[in-house]
Formats: sequence, C-alpha cells, structure tokens
Amino acid sequence: MAVCRLFWAEEGGLPADDRGLAYGDGLFETIRMVGQKGVLLSRHLERMVRDAGRLGINVSHRELATVCVQASQRFSERFTGEGWILKLTLTRGAGGRGYRPQSGMVPNLLVSASPLPPAPDASGVVVDFSRVPLTVNPLLAGIKSLNRLEQVMAAAEIGQSLFEVIMSDSEGTLVEGTRTNLLLRKNDIWVTPPVACLAVAGVLRQWLLERLRQRGEAVTERSLTVEDVLGPECQGLFLLNSVLGVVPVRTIAGHDLPVDSGLATICNPLETLE
Amino acid sequence: MAVCRLFWAEEGGLPADDRGLAYGDGLFETIRMVGQKGVLLSRHLERMVRDAGRLGINVSHRELATVCVQASQRFSERFTGEGWILKLTLTRGAGGRGYRPQSGMVPNLLVSASPLPPAPDASGVVVDFSRVPLTVNPLLAGIKSLNRLEQVMAAAEIGQSLFEVIMSDSEGTLVEGTRTNLLLRKNDIWVTPPVACLAVAGVLRQWLLERLRQRGEAVTERSLTVEDVLGPECQGLFLLNSVLGVVPVRTIAGHDLPVDSGLATICNPLETLE
Repeated sequence: MAVCRLFWAEEGGLPADDRGLAYGDGLFETIRMVGQKGVLLSRHLERMVRDAGRLGINVSHRELATVCVQASQRFSERFTGEGWILKLTLTRGAGGRGYRPQSGMVPNLLVSASPLPPAPDASGVVVDFSRVPLTVNPLLAGIKSLNRLEQVMAAAEIGQSLFEVIMSDSEGTLVEGTRTNLLLRKNDIWVTPPVACLAVAGVLRQWLLERLRQRGEAVTERSLTVEDVLGPECQGLFLLNSVLGVVPVRTIAGHDLPVDSGLATICNPLETLE
Repeated sequence: MAVCRLFWAEEGGLPADDRGLAYGDGLFETIRMVGQKGVLLSRHLERMVRDAGRLGINVSHRELATVCVQASQRFSERFTGEGWILKLTLTRGAGGRGYRPQSGMVPNLLVSASPLPPAPDASGVVVDFSRVPLTVNPLLAGIKSLNRLEQVMAAAEIGQSLFEVIMSDSEGTLVEGTRTNLLLRKNDIWVTPPVACLAVAGVLRQWLLERLRQRGEAVTERSLTVEDVLGPECQGLFLLNSVLGVVPVRTIAGHDLPVDSGLATICNPLETLE
C-alpha cells in the first residue's frame, strides 16, 4: 500500500508548503541507472528507508522499489548509451505549523531523471582543500538530507580546473568532498573516516569497504589528516561516489599524489547493477 | 528592475528542480503583519538582503519591499483582527549541475500568507532543554537559511505541555530555542549569546539589544550556561521571536524561574509597525 504521495518532476514541483523546501525536511538519493537497472540500487533504497526512519519519516523499501520500476519504464528509453541518473527526493510532506512535525503526515516523493554527468578523468583528477568548514550534527551524521548548504558553499569554490574540494571539520580533520567520500591508501592499509563523522555516508563507500575486507585487505576507519594525504607514506587518495565510481586523485592543492588505477579496476560499481 | 522570479504560494509551488528544495539553497523571513504594515519590516528585509549576499544570492531591498506591498494589498483584507503572517522564501533558483551554483542564476521568491499563531501565555511559558545538539557552521551563522533540519528534530520534542525547547552546542552551552533567541537577566545585566554562535540571528533580538542599550541598560553578549539559567542569580529568561514577541519563561525543565513581565511592556514590537 502506498504511503507516499508521488510526484513526477517533469509534471511539476512539490506543493508550495512542502517541508522539504521550507526546512530541508527530507532526504534524497541519486542513482546511476543503466537501462532499467541501477548501480547498488538496493543499497540506495535501504539507506533511504533507514535514514528516513531516523528522521521519523515512514517509507518502505517495497514502495521505493515499485517507484524505481515505474521510473525505469518511463525514462530508460529516453537515455541511450552509458545510462542515466534517477533522483528520488523524499520529504516529510506538506504543511504543519512551523518546525514541529505533526503526526500522520503523508511524505512526498519527487522523482526525476537526468543525463549522466561527464566521466571523470581515469588518469586522476585535480582537487583542492575547501575553505568551507564542515559541521556534522551527530544526530544527522551520514544522512543524505536536503540540508546541503555547506556543500553548495564549498562547491562554489570548484572552478573549471578542479574536480572536487575536500572539506574539513573545525579541528582541520579531513572528512569528505562535497559529493564524494574519501579513501586513502597508506602503509598498505586502506583508511577512511568513520561513519559517525560523515555528512553523507555513501553507499559506494560502504560497498567498497566490504569488498576490500572480503579480499583480505586491511581497512581502518579513522580520522584523516592533511599530513596523511601529503606525507610520503601516502600511496594514493580516492574519491568515492556511486554515480562517478572510484576516482583517483592526481593532484591535491598543487601536490602530486601517486595514482594507482588498480582500485578502480578491482572495484567497478557497474558490476553491481541490479 | 526585477531580479527574482516571483511565485505566489496559493497559485502553486516552485519548479521541481528548485535548489531550495534540492539543497536548502536559500533563506526565508516570517513577518508579523497588521493590515498592510509589518513588525520590524525593514529589518527583516535588510537581513534577507544581507544574508542572501553571504550566500551569493543577489536581491535588492527595493525589490523585496515592492513584493511586500503587493502581498499586503493581496492578503491584508483576508485576515481580520490581530494580523497575519507574511512568509518570503528566497532560493538561488532552479537547476545547475549538482551542488555547484552557476553564475547568473535567477533567484526564485515564493510568497505566502497564513493566520497568526496563538499568542503565548503572557504569564510565562513552560520550556525544556533539547536533547538535539545544535551545530552552527561559522560561515552560515545567523542566516535564516532553509537548512533547518536540526530545528525540526528538536521541535519534534515539543509536546502539548511545552512552548519551546532550548538547544545547546556540543559543549553544552545554551544557544537558542528552535524558533527563539535567548535573553537572560542576571545581576541586573542582560545576557544573550553572541551572533557568531547563533543558528539564526533574530531581528527582534537585535532591535531589543539596541533598545535596551539606548535606555542605558547593561547588555552583555556571551555564552549562556545551564547554571546561568538555573542558578539563584537568574532574574528571568526571555524568548525572543519577532512574530511572538518577548516571551517570559515561567518554568524550564521543571525549575520555576522568576517572571517579570516588565520587559514585554518596555519592548513591545507591535510599536515597530512600518
């Protein structure tokens, strides 16, 4: 039984009093599709269901999966070649007096499709450190919520020559890119910041960590420092995004890094089409 | 010359790809109107223009003022008695690829009207401390942006018996309510947290501080602790909101506080109708 009210973006936007617009009171998923299949599709939907629950928004995996099938039938033939992007935006619904959510609100689900972004340079990308500090509320850590103004402000620093900027917390610890999680290789160990400090806990990050551990690789979840990245023991820095894949960093803030494209070969998320 | 694209909420919502919904990429003002005049109207518009500028969104005071006149003509006769609420929601506009804002985007301005909320109990209200920590990005401090999920989560704690909950930062310092700024009286000095640590820097707070200083009262902007509020030297705690006015707290977390309604009499924001 449907719980959400479904909106197709091509037919119009959400109601004027939707709480997603008013307060960022909702969350979203951006899924790379190839035809009618999606990269890490069930993980995307699982994350949305789980994190919606953390916000007190009730939606089921089955309902989201049904909408994805409808969207695939509707959109897949419009996009040829490498695929397309399916975006699901789920909000707590419309109305209510002020910030306080009322019980029994009907969530709104907005569905849209867009072309794939350009593929990143497989030989590595150029990034910089962001001047915009990242603040993560522990209650909201990891949730791909509609509160993304910090990422917008940081992304405004990305000029034509940059692929991404890396954001740090108030202590100067590296946390993540505006749209990517970080994975560093150092002393033959894979290092990535833990979920509790992340603004967005990416599905590709989680899948990749599991995959590396299954292969017997050493993986540590701990804070990353600038020294970890710029020091001589760094064997490579990778950006993770389920649409863009595993992207090696070639240069950060003018410093060249070792580039090993092996990880992208080992872990091709296109293998995870469901 | 108009810069924004104007939308009346009663005629429909913003476009599906508006960045206010997608990322909370915008800000809002909620103005108490009486007929065609507004409480602290020019301060509301000044704040919106200034903070939009901090986000890189271009709007002029003149354009907003013109919209307020149009809104007043449109709505004022629908609401009788004590007045009505005018809400302006300004977003960076529609579209763009991902978080990164494009240059030359046309902001969207959504205008809506609603009835006044019930007046708070003049003899004082009952509040509690929130369990939701407040995190404030220094780059966004004070901006009434559309990123308000922390306030929504805190407001969900407000039951029938509470008027407000008070949020603290990660060090346990009291910062503000979900929709109110704090003003404490202690040792005959007015104390309020400084703008740099606020999620929202209220227009009533700023007006009131100026007014108190003009009257020769001692005003200090510094962090507030739980001890400041619960200790024996507390002479009263007030909640400030330009729609609700100056609201004395009678009980916080089960502790009764001294209530002096003098402040509400001295500083009646309804005198500031413009």
